[in-house]
Amino acid sequence: MTQIAIQDLYPVEFAHCFGCGTQNSEGHGLKTYLKGDLTVSTFTPDSKYTALPGSVYGGLIASILDCHGTASAAAFASKANNPDELEKGNLSVRCVTGNLNISFKKPTPMGEPLTIVGKLKSIDGRKVTVSMDLFALDQLCATGEILAITLK
Amino acid sequence: MTQIAIQDLYPVEFAHCFGCGTQNSEGHGLKTYLKGDLTVSTFTPDSKYTALPGSVYGGLIASILDCHGTASAAAFASKANNPDELEKGNLSVRCVTGNLNISFKKPTPMGEPLTIVGKLKSIDGRKVTVSMDLFALDQLCATGEILAITLK
Repeated sequence: MTQIAIQDLYPVEFAHCFGCGTQNSEGHGLKTYLKGDLTVSTFTPDSKYTALPGSVYGGLIASILDCHGTASAAAFASKANNPDELEKGNLSVRCVTGNLNISFKKPTPMGEPLTIVGKLKSIDGRKVTVSMDLFALDQLCATGEILAITLK
Repeated sequence: MTQIAIQDLYPVEFAHCFGCGTQNSEGHGLKTYLKGDLTVSTFTPDSKYTALPGSVYGGLIASILDCHGTASAAAFASKANNPDELEKGNLSVRCVTGNLNISFKKPTPMGEPLTIVGKLKSIDGRKVTVSMDLFALDQLCATGEILAITLK
């Protein structure tokens, strides 16, 4: 199961997100994988997503953290609720963002693959909190925390 | 002066931001205006920036709040530091994002003009904090707070 991206388990009728939807041909197409207790995405931004010259634009970083975060929250909550179904490739939970908090630690260099690692902080009813670290060239460039809400 | 967008006062060599740079022909081209003690941007997202069908993607909202926030912080700090120069159209300060915190209050409807209103919360040395509200159809859909850092 862990070889399939979390986003590839979303039902196609709800897979139009610009950041990560399989049905949005113009979008970023972010893919997030569950790896043990962590989630991992890698993404290399197109050069148009610039901020000050040489650095990746904060909006792009926010965008991929948002999609990484909701996918991670869905996977962690599905794993907690129904691990056997997740193992079969059935995501029992889908999440939307309630709050997204990003700290930019240093400029993110353009042209490099970015790696985002997510970790579950807590599940409290419908609230799933995930912390995220974004690395480029093995350096921590941004951190984030998402409060994701499971859809009924 | 207030008829000129804050982003149009950025030096062209630092105006490549995907979200708001005048030199980025593929970007969003966000324009933010100082209106008295507030800052205002309006923006209608292209339909490709979808989340769940019918709603604007959170990454787009984060992106325009980031650009609105850094522009607002630059304008507020310039106004505090050197109001006469700002009146002449010279921005004395430029900002980057340190932290961006967004709360999504309700789905943001697709196809509607979005209005973002910014308000200065504090200036503490190089740290400028701005709060933001994002409206669609006169409804508050998201709130944000940016901690912007003035560039030396």
